Amino acid sequence: MSISSGSSSTVVPDPPIITLLTDFGLSDSYVASMKGVILSICRKAILVDISHNVTKFRISQAAYLLSATVHYFPPGSIHLCVVDPGVGTNRRAILVKTRRSFLVGPDNGVLMLAAKDEGIEKAIEIENPKYMLDKISSTFHGRDIFASVTAHLANGVSIDEFGPRAENCIQLTSKYLVSDGKAKGEIIHVDDFGNIVTNIPSSELAKIDIKTGSKTKITIGRKTLEMTLHKTYGEVKAGEPVALIGSTGFLEISINKGDAAKTYKAKEEIGVSISRIYR
Amino acid sequence: MSISSGSSSTVVPDPPIITLLTDFGLSDSYVASMKGVILSICRKAILVDISHNVTKFRISQAAYLLSATVHYFPPGSIHLCVVDPGVGTNRRAILVKTRRSFLVGPDNGVLMLAAKDEGIEKAIEIENPKYMLDKISSTFHGRDIFASVTAHLANGVSIDEFGPRAENCIQLTSKYLVSDGKAKGEIIHVDDFGNIVTNIPSSELAKIDIKTGSKTKITIGRKTLEMTLHKTYGEVKAGEPVALIGSTGFLEISINKGDAAKTYKAKEEIGVSISRIYR
Amino acid sequence: MSISSGSSSTVVPDPPIITLLTDFGLSDSYVASMKGVILSICRKAILVDISHNVTKFRISQAAYLLSATVHYFPPGSIHLCVVDPGVGTNRRAILVKTRRSFLVGPDNGVLMLAAKDEGIEKAIEIENPKYMLDKISSTFHGRDIFASVTAHLANGVSIDEFGPRAENCIQLTSKYLVSDGKAKGEIIHVDDFGNIVTNIPSSELAKIDIKTGSKTKITIGRKTLEMTLHKTYGEVKAGEPVALIGSTGFLEISINKGDAAKTYKAKEEIGVSISRIYR
Repeated sequence: MSISSGSSSTVVPDPPIITLLTDFGLSDSYVASMKGVILSICRKAILVDISHNVTKFRISQAAYLLSATVHYFPPGSIHLCVVDPGVGTNRRAILVKTRRSFLVGPDNGVLMLAAKDEGIEKAIEIENPKYMLDKISSTFHGRDIFASVTAHLANGVSIDEFGPRAENCIQLTSKYLVSDGKAKGEIIHVDDFGNIVTNIPSSELAKIDIKTGSKTKITIGRKTLEMTLHKTYGEVKAGEPVALIGSTGFLEISINKGDAAKTYKAKEEIGVSISRIYR
Repeated sequence: MSISSGSSSTVVPDPPIITLLTDFGLSDSYVASMKGVILSICRKAILVDISHNVTKFRISQAAYLLSATVHYFPPGSIHLCVVDPGVGTNRRAILVKTRRSFLVGPDNGVLMLAAKDEGIEKAIEIENPKYMLDKISSTFHGRDIFASVTAHLANGVSIDEFGPRAENCIQLTSKYLVSDGKAKGEIIHVDDFGNIVTNIPSSELAKIDIKTGSKTKITIGRKTLEMTLHKTYGEVKAGEPVALIGSTGFLEISINKGDAAKTYKAKEEIGVSISRIYR
Repeated sequence: MSISSGSSSTVVPDPPIITLLTDFGLSDSYVASMKGVILSICRKAILVDISHNVTKFRISQAAYLLSATVHYFPPGSIHLCVVDPGVGTNRRAILVKTRRSFLVGPDNGVLMLAAKDEGIEKAIEIENPKYMLDKISSTFHGRDIFASVTAHLANGVSIDEFGPRAENCIQLTSKYLVSDGKAKGEIIHVDDFGNIVTNIPSSELAKIDIKTGSKTKITIGRKTLEMTLHKTYGEVKAGEPVALIGSTGFLEISINKGDAAKTYKAKEEIGVSISRIYR
């Protein structure tokens, strides 16, 4: 199967698919309240959790997880992302239509990485109270605004109904740099296996002559390591480090059957660099 | 959208919605077994998790989470809650019909807070083996009795089919008190952000002249703090404490972008008081 | 309700049910990507999580959880299990048709315990690229191969379409032994309550004259304990140890309202023995 790249007439198919990505955790009933609101408005919606364990308020991590995932959902899917440290202040609520999908969330950059990947067509500022709950709390717009808007969108309400065009949506700046045979970036995510995901795309490695089988020098914070770029974990022995292009297309540093993040004390936002070793 | 307050002729709509709330955690297959039983009997049911991370055996916390959530689900939804320290002993299994919904679970108080909010119409003791699995284990009534009964209810079986009327269902006593300008209660839940949720409803604060903008003295266990009642986290600086009415209508104590529970060593069942400071 | 034992003409019913069991954790978007792929191919599928918190790479634990659960799902369900330390190496990908269900996953033993319980009919090696994603990463066959194959199977593609018959699928060896009035086994799972689940089936206890009410001597690693085999936790006082046949039919060691695993420092793969005490 090849994955559809969408078209300029993105519509919500029947039944609609709605994904949810938040930093709410799994101990509370917040996510369930959002789902209750959605199903109250659009009972036929198919709900899929992306994750609710985003590090609290870590917009860049959520943006990465969203962009790594939306591509695998059918065209017309609606992606609701609520990582919203500014809830209740005057940050905008937005809805973005792309060539493949719809994205709903706060205007803090969390949606725009995925939106760009999918091809932005139009962003709308969510303003029309008709599509929100009657009573809006100051602390839980995920339920009172975003879930409600998402469900109305799933019901086929036209995006222009929700509010005026939103100009200048906030974009996260991409923090990697390639020069002098070295790519410098940072850790954007540590996965549950302890794999270290960087923001350095595979396309940039090609520019500095790093390909499968290349020996490389990698720095993680102040640590310097030597390892080979392989295709999969199993190509090195258990317990040995391995660099590879992860399943989302970025440079990853792993330890076969081990926990690289724990071993190298790596966490999000720490700097990473990679260069090729010739000898 | 306004949320329907239901009617006295509550029926299960098509397709039925079933929510699940347990203290089973997410490492086991217990919840999945329950879902398998439900789908074996009622394949069209829409299943929504409320939470499975209730503190083990903490009935009051589950009761709070349930009551904070059911209101957001469509009328006719069925809420299955299995926090059941007395499983296998002679505690009763019950089914409660309210003006808006159905609740299924053990008779230990876990259902009754939500049931009262929704308007209790009738409680039934679950007795009819016809609607249980053929083989009933002593340790897992969630799967063998509750899931099965819930699914038959979703299929439209009349509540009176499940057993006789249940009298005197166990109720949790509400542990807050307002007198002499002070409201005293306790912590009922610490959410995943470290927000401290008390059992003091916003309506009680009005009685002691506390409203948005009021300066207040708050005690948490033996700690005494001064803070202002605000509308949202962002109204104080990052790292500063803030009192507010949470999204479920109770007094909450938070730290903007911080973890109040960790900072104040707060956990469930610790006493909390609040009074207004005039000066 | 009695649970159907299936028949030799297992077919996928409409709508199909697909369960997912992995060691991917809940912090990443890996599981969501798999669900996106499935819904892109088979939008009507009902998706149910078994667990994603299997201990990393612990095949025996996943095999246990799967075998404890599949029985409760309707005939024709498809169970997708990705605990796959050998991903990207030359381990085979397989699909197993049983008398009740379909199982999809790596050929490392993880499927075969459940498959045997359900009655193996035929195993197929997954080879046909027509049913995989166009671009296959080296590290995430769960998404690129298994999810895609599962969805096509749910759409009604005949199992023989996926590849040739797979001979000699890897089986986990069962590590328990009964002799001289003693049953020796090991811990296969510690559940979220701290209940210690062993691999000793209740049927073996009967052979050494242990039944409900029997006093027993139990060893866990180097610890020796005396306890009675009861039917449920509540038959001993809070804080006291109790042996019982768990809801999945194996010997379990628990502490009523306590955490047996923590108390006895028990974890997976530690040896356990049980014998009856006569006096």
